[in-house]
Amino acid sequence: MQFPTTVKVVEVGPRDGLQNEPDPVPTPTKIEFIDRLSRTGLRCIEPTSFVSPRWIPQLADAADVIDGMQRPTGVVYPVLVPNKRGMERALEAGVDTIAIFVAATETFNQRNINASLAVSMTRLGEVAELARQHDVSMRGYVSCVLGCPYEGAVEAQSVATIARELHDMGCYEISLGDTIGVGTPVAARELIETTAAQVPLQRLAVHFHDTRGQALANVLACLGCGIDTVDASVAGLGGCPYADGASGNLATEDLVYMLHGMGIETGIDLDALIAAGRYICAAMGRSPGSRLGLIPRHRRAPRFST
Amino acid sequence: MQFPTTVKVVEVGPRDGLQNEPDPVPTPTKIEFIDRLSRTGLRCIEPTSFVSPRWIPQLADAADVIDGMQRPTGVVYPVLVPNKRGMERALEAGVDTIAIFVAATETFNQRNINASLAVSMTRLGEVAELARQHDVSMRGYVSCVLGCPYEGAVEAQSVATIARELHDMGCYEISLGDTIGVGTPVAARELIETTAAQVPLQRLAVHFHDTRGQALANVLACLGCGIDTVDASVAGLGGCPYADGASGNLATEDLVYMLHGMGIETGIDLDALIAAGRYICAAMGRSPGSRLGLIPRHRRAPRFST
Repeated sequence: MQFPTTVKVVEVGPRDGLQNEPDPVPTPTKIEFIDRLSRTGLRCIEPTSFVSPRWIPQLADAADVIDGMQRPTGVVYPVLVPNKRGMERALEAGVDTIAIFVAATETFNQRNINASLAVSMTRLGEVAELARQHDVSMRGYVSCVLGCPYEGAVEAQSVATIARELHDMGCYEISLGDTIGVGTPVAARELIETTAAQVPLQRLAVHFHDTRGQALANVLACLGCGIDTVDASVAGLGGCPYADGASGNLATEDLVYMLHGMGIETGIDLDALIAAGRYICAAMGRSPGSRLGLIPRHRRAPRFST
Repeated sequence: MQFPTTVKVVEVGPRDGLQNEPDPVPTPTKIEFIDRLSRTGLRCIEPTSFVSPRWIPQLADAADVIDGMQRPTGVVYPVLVPNKRGMERALEAGVDTIAIFVAATETFNQRNINASLAVSMTRLGEVAELARQHDVSMRGYVSCVLGCPYEGAVEAQSVATIARELHDMGCYEISLGDTIGVGTPVAARELIETTAAQVPLQRLAVHFHDTRGQALANVLACLGCGIDTVDASVAGLGGCPYADGASGNLATEDLVYMLHGMGIETGIDLDALIAAGRYICAAMGRSPGSRLGLIPRHRRAPRFST
């Protein structure tokens, strides 16, 4: 089985991770966290989201975060925007890359963003038009790609169709998300193969939640299909898997450990990544959700194995 | 990539899991735990160990456990024995299957059981002779197969040699253990390929610790090599990964979820397995170490995905 020689890791912790915290993290802490991540060698970090503060008050400081954080060259910072209003706020904040999202199923999309798939696609088209006008790059997400809490099984073909629409809309990359963490390796592989028939493989990313402990195994299966872009959240930020079936992100540290162990380059300093995860967890008063982050420093992976 | 259609799961929780508990679990609780596991469809359960009570007081009740637990036909119960004295106690208890163990490196073997590899092999030969005389089946373990905390990298060839010696000694199955959980999928695959040149693939099992979150991905890589026997510990019993680099077992529930999701038969009732894990964790006053066990019942995996 062949694997890519290099993998781009997309860090979603600051947004996907912190948006679920019951107590909002102070803006300066978010900025310090993002700046630390920017120094790990990560090439893509999702810093925040311009969703309505009424929906997610934890991210109401999006503009201040964008304004305060460092933006070294070579690192891309896509911010999540749900609609035209969010896009306008993102543009005011001087954002140059955004991420748009839609679910693979009608019911989840309805419950998640209170709109039908058709309405969502129309709204995203308006966002895409603004993005084109202002020369803003777009990343796309499809959620519930391997299962929906309301509709159950999801057809890979319907995921592929939506991914293609996002690609045609101008997304430079489409991230396929197993939002409730029900997927297993064979299904993940079939999803990639089906979707790659509609969207160039190089344009696809995977986003697995570890709700049932399957995330890293699913990543491995997708790497074997040629996928070379993987989303993850440092310290597994994203809420606890038992509190919400939709949360429990793959921990970036454990992903990077596997990739490096397999001889796959990421450009990431694993020690610095672990330290960034410890920083934000200490600030939030919780222990890291990554396995690596839980190992005392002197017990961290021996050099030979990374 | 091809996977086996059926996998035998070897449950090591009652022994490998409980031997690390600071407070010994009461014998009746152990027996009830093993009896519940015996009703899940598991075909092989490691109930206890006849090591010196001075070494591991938590398992001093080994004979009482063997005497008290049910032993339905079709389920094999290997008990761990380190030497001739342990074997004699196991025989007195009426055991028909044992497991012997040795490390892949001199230093770990010395620190783990206070003997050189040569001395260990001699002692295990004595145990094997007693096993032959009493028609007792033998399973073998090689530990530190992907890394040693004292010697670092481990040559796959040396693991293969030791595995072959255990096979020649009469072990019906040799379990390769990544005792400190440093392995990653490519190294795991290479280990299997190298060892399978010395021991028939059908005689090999894998035993991964999840210390760095790699266990299930490593299992997937080994399944791809044709491995069809996998060790795991219900509820991830075996201590916390951050307290001891050598602990943090792969949770049987998460393994079985993956196997079933891949269409691989195990004969195991996952719900009953999760319940058995919750039983022992409740008795020990801790929360399950499996991801699945942490998901509230109503959020457990939708039927379609198993």
